[in-house]
Amino acid sequence: MSTLREQGGSVGIVGLGLIGGSLARALQGAGVPVVATDPSSAEAARAAGLTVADDVAGLAVQRPDVVVLAVPLRAMRAVAAELAEALSGEPGWDPTVTDVGSVKAPVREAVSDAGLGDRYVGAHPMSGTERSGFEASSVELLQGIPWAVTCAPGTDPARLERVLRLVTGPLGGTAAVLTDELHDEAAALVSHVPHVLANQLLGAVAGAPVRDLALRLAAGSFRDGTRVGLSDPRRTEAMVTENAAWVAPVLRLAARDLERLAEALDSNAPTHWFFDRPDSVRERLGRPGGTRVTGLHPGDGAGLSDVGSDVDVVPLTGDWPAELVTRCAGGAVVFALEDGTALLR
Amino acid sequence: MSTLREQGGSVGIVGLGLIGGSLARALQGAGVPVVATDPSSAEAARAAGLTVADDVAGLAVQRPDVVVLAVPLRAMRAVAAELAEALSGEPGWDPTVTDVGSVKAPVREAVSDAGLGDRYVGAHPMSGTERSGFEASSVELLQGIPWAVTCAPGTDPARLERVLRLVTGPLGGTAAVLTDELHDEAAALVSHVPHVLANQLLGAVAGAPVRDLALRLAAGSFRDGTRVGLSDPRRTEAMVTENAAWVAPVLRLAARDLERLAEALDSNAPTHWFFDRPDSVRERLGRPGGTRVTGLHPGDGAGLSDVGSDVDVVPLTGDWPAELVTRCAGGAVVFALEDGTALLR
Repeated sequence: MSTLREQGGSVGIVGLGLIGGSLARALQGAGVPVVATDPSSAEAARAAGLTVADDVAGLAVQRPDVVVLAVPLRAMRAVAAELAEALSGEPGWDPTVTDVGSVKAPVREAVSDAGLGDRYVGAHPMSGTERSGFEASSVELLQGIPWAVTCAPGTDPARLERVLRLVTGPLGGTAAVLTDELHDEAAALVSHVPHVLANQLLGAVAGAPVRDLALRLAAGSFRDGTRVGLSDPRRTEAMVTENAAWVAPVLRLAARDLERLAEALDSNAPTHWFFDRPDSVRERLGRPGGTRVTGLHPGDGAGLSDVGSDVDVVPLTGDWPAELVTRCAGGAVVFALEDGTALLR
Repeated sequence: MSTLREQGGSVGIVGLGLIGGSLARALQGAGVPVVATDPSSAEAARAAGLTVADDVAGLAVQRPDVVVLAVPLRAMRAVAAELAEALSGEPGWDPTVTDVGSVKAPVREAVSDAGLGDRYVGAHPMSGTERSGFEASSVELLQGIPWAVTCAPGTDPARLERVLRLVTGPLGGTAAVLTDELHDEAAALVSHVPHVLANQLLGAVAGAPVRDLALRLAAGSFRDGTRVGLSDPRRTEAMVTENAAWVAPVLRLAARDLERLAEALDSNAPTHWFFDRPDSVRERLGRPGGTRVTGLHPGDGAGLSDVGSDVDVVPLTGDWPAELVTRCAGGAVVFALEDGTALLR
């Protein structure tokens, strides 16, 4: 049995929205000491049994081993500066700093600019709902889900290990260890662009003369295709603009493809190229015993992770972070740390 | 209590795939006499307790009051011709012909070319799953769902009424009475284009260097945004190509919007216009007591129909089909026929 310290020790959470609130509930539920702070949700969080500090300085007094920045992307820079100031007032406190932002390179930049780059490991839980705020948070949202955990050439392996132990231990999740760039490229494809297209579908209906009729006829394909379009548009916009460098090329590709398809439709030209192109992904997602998770409420997030693959073992020696990035770039994930090794599948 | 005859009488179903099979199960479950035919599913359908004729001629011998063409769009023309031939061998048989195709104008053309235009009323159940075939059919799929029912200037009101009684009676559904064009325009927005964008999302990942990693990180937004992209690509392609005239302009609009958004992202220009545009639809779908149906399995189709609206009554006299089209074009639906009137909400 590993001790709490081995699992990542105590955790401070700055921001108790949907993700921060769910993280606090899940960690506390798993027996991890948690202290959180969020002026707008303090009362509700205390009512939910969480320990809540008045502000970042108050959280710093508790000297948690890991501090998670769980604030909106636009607030990362300011909160990182607050944390840096609190740190200077707590000599000897040596926390690892991580976050739960949906884009990683800009968060590393913000945290580094605050002087916390050496302490930082990026993290992104791949789960969510179209709702926001502490009142939408739940103990289940972040349990057993896939995470991306990001590092850079200078990342302290001990800090990376601490975050991996939190994710794969009390949170029961898996972690793809990646560079910020790999994360941001993949997240553009499977999260940010899906959010954009959901907004496009809603926007096209909003501007159509047959809007009300169309909504009356809307069924499963529209409901599912637009679900995340019901999210707070400012949250979606921040996610997309912060990852502009990776999102824009995927949108240009989509624009070109859709224009080409429209031309083919207008001229009765072949359209197989468009509808057959996803075959390799359809096959992967539909594989028996494979990846598609079913039976979930459409409002819940959950990974489409593989099951039943072979287990791979990487010793936590040498430049093991780089080794994990290589494996995870190819689709592997860490599901446990044991006896000085990372177990991947 | 209305008699079965008033509810639409007996029903013949040509084609026992996902929709035809579900229709047969639902009608039979509601006590409506059903005879069906489909060479590829006959055995399974008989095992499920359905009455199955060997072919269209065998179905014609049973002289059902309504014949539903529940075959793929590409087979409509051939099956309509088969039915016309069977009709000529059954003097005095006077069935109403309808269908369940996802596009309406091309089906009316096919049926009219077979000489069945005077008997025809178009229908489209707004429900489905990404699966296909009789084995995917269920008694629930078409129960209590929104339908589009389409007519043209020459439509026989008695035949329209018969189809409306089937939809709102034993099937427990609602019907938007529309022209083919109104249906095809709205269906492009809420069904056909969502299917195209789901294929676009899958296709972009299929072609990406980080494909396997991206699928590992994929969560709720990708799962929901691509669900219908797992459908049989030939079925999706047929739906889209048959409705090319309405789909292509919506795709061009999307291509233009996405290109514009990419440009804004590249140049740090404002993007509010894109993310705020769906506000009117978000408001409608999120309205308390409003339209969003929750708690459904993502694989099931179901309408986002309004509840709690006022009831409107249209007497079935004069040119009532045109009156219903006017009301339904604005977002109303028929939920019952009673005492010589249509009840709308």
